[in-house]
Amino acid sequence: MKPDDVKARPKDAAETATPSAVVLLSGGLDSATAAAWATSKSYRLSALSIDYGQRHRCELDASRAVAQALGISDHVVLPIDLAAFGGSALVDPSTPVPKDRSDADIGHGIPVTYVPARNTVFLSLALAMAETRGAGAIVLGVNAIDYSGYPDCRPEFLAAFGEVARLGTKAGVEGRPIELVAPLVKLSKAEIIRLGLSLGLDYGLTTSCYDPDSRGRPCGRCDSCLLRAAGFAAVGATDPRASL
Amino acid sequence: MKPDDVKARPKDAAETATPSAVVLLSGGLDSATAAAWATSKSYRLSALSIDYGQRHRCELDASRAVAQALGISDHVVLPIDLAAFGGSALVDPSTPVPKDRSDADIGHGIPVTYVPARNTVFLSLALAMAETRGAGAIVLGVNAIDYSGYPDCRPEFLAAFGEVARLGTKAGVEGRPIELVAPLVKLSKAEIIRLGLSLGLDYGLTTSCYDPDSRGRPCGRCDSCLLRAAGFAAVGATDPRASL
Repeated sequence: MKPDDVKARPKDAAETATPSAVVLLSGGLDSATAAAWATSKSYRLSALSIDYGQRHRCELDASRAVAQALGISDHVVLPIDLAAFGGSALVDPSTPVPKDRSDADIGHGIPVTYVPARNTVFLSLALAMAETRGAGAIVLGVNAIDYSGYPDCRPEFLAAFGEVARLGTKAGVEGRPIELVAPLVKLSKAEIIRLGLSLGLDYGLTTSCYDPDSRGRPCGRCDSCLLRAAGFAAVGATDPRASL
Repeated sequence: MKPDDVKARPKDAAETATPSAVVLLSGGLDSATAAAWATSKSYRLSALSIDYGQRHRCELDASRAVAQALGISDHVVLPIDLAAFGGSALVDPSTPVPKDRSDADIGHGIPVTYVPARNTVFLSLALAMAETRGAGAIVLGVNAIDYSGYPDCRPEFLAAFGEVARLGTKAGVEGRPIELVAPLVKLSKAEIIRLGLSLGLDYGLTTSCYDPDSRGRPCGRCDSCLLRAAGFAAVGATDPRASL
């Protein structure tokens, strides 16, 4: 299996010695897999996680565990209060997270868990960090196949942000644009899990649930839990997180 | 004088009654003029200011004074620690702000006061706020004529970000893209000041200096002070801020 990259593919390791990159690390299954993939491709990684007032805050603990497991010592957890703007079930405790949606519903239409412009905000912060560190790429685990219907996970969105990165930075103006590398964008959830397992990634460190309990245990019923469970079932593997 | 807007112009007031917008308000001369212009065009404005660890922090006080003077009650001052990434004279006190540069130097090349991806970060936050509030536009005071050589002030950058706003939001997917409105982008500093004075804007409330003293008084020698002084001189007006 060979993950597809979005737009400008990074050069092979043989062409550029150990490129450096900032990986957006949420603590979820996808971003952990993208980070493991980048590590396997010899990227020198820094990691950025955003503390944006999400109610599934155990994500941030998971991001630290994943960074440690992958040997990423430069890990910035940046607080930013998107909850000040309100407007999403992921940041507003008064809005319930949808549960038990059918396959036909998940990924069709934009659910209430959509956070306005979240990936645009995250990518812009990754871009600032990448340019400050002199990194040549941003690695991210977005996925346009088994996803929850968010517009800012689509390849056309990533291509548009690539233009912003090229035109809006000193690095881009000087002919060293910071590339977006999205190795999972065209993989199914099962393919993502197979890739991570082949790289030795411990998915017990990751968390995907939008509505975990106070001990971080997944609800098993939100869109994210359902997509994850279906992915592990398709692979025929056991999700180490589900047995917590 | 009629300011040019970038890309998709907002519809005339006759076509859409009092559109709502988020204005990025830095507390400087340009963004205050853009906000005064939008007020004169009957936009219902919310304002967003970013506390990003800038060392010219009197900007934030100025942004509050400008918002109050323009009757903008919905004003969010959002803290975000760009200084955690380092890398610019505007956030790193150990890097001196260039002083007494000649006209030939200002605007040619990217100066050390460039903050990596700053406008991308600010626009992404304005986009999140605009979508959360149901606003149809983002108003910003960027200017590509008398500016300091920052890549993220150019019209082509703004056009690229407009695509990100269209593709990366629920509003855009549903056919209500949030437009970028940059009324000053093709105006000279003198034209901007004339516009603001014609609208009754009190420039004594605004601050432009990159390196003010502890009481907020301008240094008179950084690029931003020099551009501002040349603008007032060209108009034949007195800068009320310069006499503080």
